[in-house]
Amino acid sequence: MSAATDCPLCSGDGGDVVWRGASARVVLAPEPLFPGFTRVILTEHHAEMSDLDAARRAELMALVNCVEEAQRALLRPDKINLAALGNVVPHLHWHVIPRWRDDSHFPAPVWSAAQRDGAARIARVQPLVAEYRAALAARLAARQSP
Amino acid sequence: MSAATDCPLCSGDGGDVVWRGASARVVLAPEPLFPGFTRVILTEHHAEMSDLDAARRAELMALVNCVEEAQRALLRPDKINLAALGNVVPHLHWHVIPRWRDDSHFPAPVWSAAQRDGAARIARVQPLVAEYRAALAARLAARQSP
Repeated sequence: MSAATDCPLCSGDGGDVVWRGASARVVLAPEPLFPGFTRVILTEHHAEMSDLDAARRAELMALVNCVEEAQRALLRPDKINLAALGNVVPHLHWHVIPRWRDDSHFPAPVWSAAQRDGAARIARVQPLVAEYRAALAARLAARQSP
Repeated sequence: MSAATDCPLCSGDGGDVVWRGASARVVLAPEPLFPGFTRVILTEHHAEMSDLDAARRAELMALVNCVEEAQRALLRPDKINLAALGNVVPHLHWHVIPRWRDDSHFPAPVWSAAQRDGAARIARVQPLVAEYRAALAARLAARQSP
């Protein structure tokens, strides 16, 4: 199936669109606790990676890797977190999350309870996001896409 | 770097080893709330996917996909969750987690607070794990590995 009528990732962008290709888009996620949190969202409505053929899985992971590389180069996080969950919105989307030891949840996943307010880290990362966004858009545009 | 002396995934298997290849192993995770929870663990000690070249990333994701397909075929979960976090143990390992609407945490990630005890679902899945393990081992052994 290519679209689902009640799916928010079929009917909306799911964030600030940094890049849009035929098979997927890359958005800055509206996650104020985690500046730089980026999602790679499949265009078509499929729930699982194994619903895609190998070439489409590879293309999606190449986009995820491009985001990861841009985050490491521009934001210099302590760790990258990658996840495709989709329990609430079963439309394939990859979370690419830059993490720092002093962010609100570290070392727990961002879906756990907060361990501190993380405001100091947010204040350090937020000013880098515009440059990260521009560099990410350039890297994605420069990719050789099938 | 190929090994880290204080890393539990360099010094130990991290679970019940279902299959071991040169570049990675696949283990059943010791996660009693989530029968079938499987991890794909890189052999060498690297923290991030982007530390690997494209061929090694592809090989790791092929293993993840093999696990996902075996879970769908044998366990028939409502959703698959994939994640590479590594905040606590920064040695690349992929979580491949079969999820059901009545498991202890659904629709939240397994790292969130439990929403119910999930005992009825555990009791339904646990008897399938031995057959899943055997089928997964066979699928992994049958793969064309580089």
